[in-house]
Amino acid sequence: MAINRFKQEFGEQTDVYFVFNGTGANILSLSTLTHSFHSVICADTAHIQTDECGAPEKFSGCKLLPVETVRGKITPEGISKYLHGFDFEHHSQPKVISISQVTELGTVYTVDEIQAITSMAHQFGLFVHMDGARIANAAVALNLPFRAFTVDSGVDVLSFGGTKNGMMQGEAVLFFNPELSKDTKYIRKQSMQLFSKMRFVSAQFLAYFNDDLWKRNATHSNRMAQLLEKEVRKIPAVQLTQTVEANGVFAIIPAEIIPKLQEKYFFYMWDEHRSEVRWMTSFDTQEEDILNFAALIKSLV
Amino acid sequence: MAINRFKQEFGEQTDVYFVFNGTGANILSLSTLTHSFHSVICADTAHIQTDECGAPEKFSGCKLLPVETVRGKITPEGISKYLHGFDFEHHSQPKVISISQVTELGTVYTVDEIQAITSMAHQFGLFVHMDGARIANAAVALNLPFRAFTVDSGVDVLSFGGTKNGMMQGEAVLFFNPELSKDTKYIRKQSMQLFSKMRFVSAQFLAYFNDDLWKRNATHSNRMAQLLEKEVRKIPAVQLTQTVEANGVFAIIPAEIIPKLQEKYFFYMWDEHRSEVRWMTSFDTQEEDILNFAALIKSLV
Amino acid sequence: MAINRFKQEFGEQTDVYFVFNGTGANILSLSTLTHSFHSVICADTAHIQTDECGAPEKFSGCKLLPVETVRGKITPEGISKYLHGFDFEHHSQPKVISISQVTELGTVYTVDEIQAITSMAHQFGLFVHMDGARIANAAVALNLPFRAFTVDSGVDVLSFGGTKNGMMQGEAVLFFNPELSKDTKYIRKQSMQLFSKMRFVSAQFLAYFNDDLWKRNATHSNRMAQLLEKEVRKIPAVQLTQTVEANGVFAIIPAEIIPKLQEKYFFYMWDEHRSEVRWMTSFDTQEEDILNFAALIKSLV
Amino acid sequence: MAINRFKQEFGEQTDVYFVFNGTGANILSLSTLTHSFHSVICADTAHIQTDECGAPEKFSGCKLLPVETVRGKITPEGISKYLHGFDFEHHSQPKVISISQVTELGTVYTVDEIQAITSMAHQFGLFVHMDGARIANAAVALNLPFRAFTVDSGVDVLSFGGTKNGMMQGEAVLFFNPELSKDTKYIRKQSMQLFSKMRFVSAQFLAYFNDDLWKRNATHSNRMAQLLEKEVRKIPAVQLTQTVEANGVFAIIPAEIIPKLQEKYFFYMWDEHRSEVRWMTSFDTQEEDILNFAALIKSLV
Repeated sequence: MAINRFKQEFGEQTDVYFVFNGTGANILSLSTLTHSFHSVICADTAHIQTDECGAPEKFSGCKLLPVETVRGKITPEGISKYLHGFDFEHHSQPKVISISQVTELGTVYTVDEIQAITSMAHQFGLFVHMDGARIANAAVALNLPFRAFTVDSGVDVLSFGGTKNGMMQGEAVLFFNPELSKDTKYIRKQSMQLFSKMRFVSAQFLAYFNDDLWKRNATHSNRMAQLLEKEVRKIPAVQLTQTVEANGVFAIIPAEIIPKLQEKYFFYMWDEHRSEVRWMTSFDTQEEDILNFAALIKSLV
Repeated sequence: MAINRFKQEFGEQTDVYFVFNGTGANILSLSTLTHSFHSVICADTAHIQTDECGAPEKFSGCKLLPVETVRGKITPEGISKYLHGFDFEHHSQPKVISISQVTELGTVYTVDEIQAITSMAHQFGLFVHMDGARIANAAVALNLPFRAFTVDSGVDVLSFGGTKNGMMQGEAVLFFNPELSKDTKYIRKQSMQLFSKMRFVSAQFLAYFNDDLWKRNATHSNRMAQLLEKEVRKIPAVQLTQTVEANGVFAIIPAEIIPKLQEKYFFYMWDEHRSEVRWMTSFDTQEEDILNFAALIKSLV
Repeated sequence: MAINRFKQEFGEQTDVYFVFNGTGANILSLSTLTHSFHSVICADTAHIQTDECGAPEKFSGCKLLPVETVRGKITPEGISKYLHGFDFEHHSQPKVISISQVTELGTVYTVDEIQAITSMAHQFGLFVHMDGARIANAAVALNLPFRAFTVDSGVDVLSFGGTKNGMMQGEAVLFFNPELSKDTKYIRKQSMQLFSKMRFVSAQFLAYFNDDLWKRNATHSNRMAQLLEKEVRKIPAVQLTQTVEANGVFAIIPAEIIPKLQEKYFFYMWDEHRSEVRWMTSFDTQEEDILNFAALIKSLV
Repeated sequence: MAINRFKQEFGEQTDVYFVFNGTGANILSLSTLTHSFHSVICADTAHIQTDECGAPEKFSGCKLLPVETVRGKITPEGISKYLHGFDFEHHSQPKVISISQVTELGTVYTVDEIQAITSMAHQFGLFVHMDGARIANAAVALNLPFRAFTVDSGVDVLSFGGTKNGMMQGEAVLFFNPELSKDTKYIRKQSMQLFSKMRFVSAQFLAYFNDDLWKRNATHSNRMAQLLEKEVRKIPAVQLTQTVEANGVFAIIPAEIIPKLQEKYFFYMWDEHRSEVRWMTSFDTQEEDILNFAALIKSLV
């Protein structure tokens, strides 16, 4: 069973809940850990802060406290400005630190960086949630088993992503302390993430872990990002803005070529003001795609 | 495209939103139609009242007002007791009447019954939502096109179910007046029902409508329910409690045989006090299943 | 201090929170006791069900489950129909039974009736909340100290009303088990019921308890209701619909005289269909008011 | 009537709602203007962001987007970083800019500064809310009628404070476009801010406006702050951190004297890390209080 497969990866005590999508996984995690008078500290670029249309606030009732990031990562120093006002009822009580692995800027937290955050959190009585929508790409980048940089580094709850690494659809929420999750099944149902035919999600995870399919997919997409990096480095008009550590490439490019590129390739603007774009590679990106894409840029600039 | 297919069935003005599951479809419908100070009138047996773990209240903030049912249906008379207190701020303002087609008791509203409710609703400035988790079974039972007993009968918003009639997973919410749904896309995202690979839902609907697959499935499951009814009528210890109009059979049976039946067949208790059970047939029920099931009952009583 | 005065009345372990109004007191009580996936069982006439514009659902996220009343009271039999589905995640989990003392129909629960409800509740792991907006009138009617029919009868949380018995404004929420209320201060702030000059509420309670002012007020208003009952019994066109046990009189009167009465006296329609009205007496009602009011009715019929 | 008095000050079209407290006034304002998928842009020091225990998120469901301030004020430049993602359903839709007048740092927006914000807001389809908990102090500081820097400067909704300038308790929410507030009465009730004896709030406002009592109070407290500023400027160990424009004085003082000062005088720490304190003067501060307070500091350093 898929649940057992997760227990093998993360330890027997792991409590596993399948959900539909990444937003659902994050909301289920945060709602389980909090009351509405709590606050959640996260990167100002975090998916929960910028890409979930306010679902965390709406469903959990909590305040989100954005921290400026360094290369997409939050640090104990950035977090510390919010660690006050405890026991003061006028103040949302800090309860969770949420980090994304891979980050929204394509960078990867090291084990040391994660442990610095989890030990600060636990010292102040906070939990640590990891948004692992791209956790497979992080595991490959770090060349570590999942558990080394999650449960073994002090993470309390993990949104384990599948959709972005080749699954049709499905995510899992893992609680590493079952004390935390005794009401989670009700929250999952009330948050509309329970599915009568959940076997269609769990079955995908069995295939995903089988034969290290997840690893082959993530290794491939990370490699494609490196190839893309290598190719666009050759083009002077393209200025890379982040180190390429997983499957994302961030670059400032001439604004006028963006619409022409987007006619042929789907990607998001990252920062309109700076003309910065985000290029993501995936399990089904082909070398040829990369080479053609780089060639198109070259021809346009 | 799947959206066009829905427009063909329900009219060009139909605004279509795909979602994950039935609870999500109902919450998206109700949240679009209401503010939190509104109330929603529904059957005391309605899925939104008894089977969604309070998701409607949690997400919409509205009060649900349960009406006693007659054979699973609510009536203008039952509804009328809640149609007061308009404009009085101490009182949740009635805004939606929600009916289920097929009802939770396996019965089917006639066109006349639906029109009686929709005209009462519109007279008082309320909307009508239909929970169509089993709408295919209703269409077959009524032998009418979908639109005859929905948009053409005054229904404003429809949760159109697919999962219970053979789809892997997926539902659609149909707004018959696009004025109502101008913010629905945000509500879908915030309610965690948006899916990055929504094509896996919409593609299923294409197959579902193609060649009337939906009709074949629903015709079959309705027929299986009739067969089950016929078989269990032969057993004196089984007392049918509802007319069999779609794919559900409700019966009072000796309490002591229920655990033994459930060892071999999955079904829910409907009313423990009365020893009433609910048997649902589906697209993949076989005649032989029915006959074996009836034989097992006979051997147990 | 006012808090100590409450501890004298209800026991040392009582945890006291002042709030602005009755709705705030009820919401603070219910939100403290529940998660959003819980349900609250109450009378179908309860203030929380009919007169708070959905504030309980909006703020707590819970489902309210209305029970038909007998003379304004709910009974273990009525409650029992909702005591199922425990541990089943599709079902809002019953967590609180809320009763009103005095009831919304002017009747008063006896100690035995309360104990029957609290022992049923505790047997199923539920809490009992009492909406005591008119608790002073109940204490006078029962001729018992407050604690006899609250904490000593198993009530867990009490909304203790002041406004309706002569205070300018202010209510208190009393938790009889301080384990329950460890987060209440945050919920009070987040529910907008904390007041920077709360001393203006607490000071009123000191005056209220001093010299038994509360008792004199409530005794007077109950007596005025009895006088009103006596006077209108003399008028054949007036049909009393409830026993007069506290400070409310319910009667069916000819519909055509209601607007004329309301020109001179403020009162609410209770049930428009039956032409039933609700007349409340208060600490400042004068005998002469009653006699004049009865005389006016007589002259109108 | 108090409502008419507000109409005289702010214009006939003003729609007035009395509420209990400042948090209630802000939540009623924001909830009226938004759906839960909207966001509210405000100062990172705003009362709604730091001092309301998450009530805005809990009740409105919206995301709050904090802007760094310049002397307590937000600017169009700071706001602009959030003015993107319109029409993109993954993104909370910006809908309100909320500013505090007086700011939380004791500074006062000029008319030009307010107009710069309101015209940017309206250009993007946003509303402007003003948290006027200390609006009387601002009017005195600016020497302008209330309407000059509110409705006449493009503000859409105003929380008009009374409690902090001498009223026992009470605030008003003013909508300058009655189209906006057609549902506000329901939201007030559902947010627990309706009071059965609201006359005790409105009557205070009559007295407040009568004879310019509000102006005398605010003039006095502003003058006391100037006196305090003058006195502490004489003490080298005290470093003022903000210009004194209304009734607040912010200063960095030696950490070791703070507990001793707080033994005799009540004030809040503003920033523990910097040893920065906030001293507020009020309608009942006496010159002697100021002189004694300054003398105590002198004696302690």
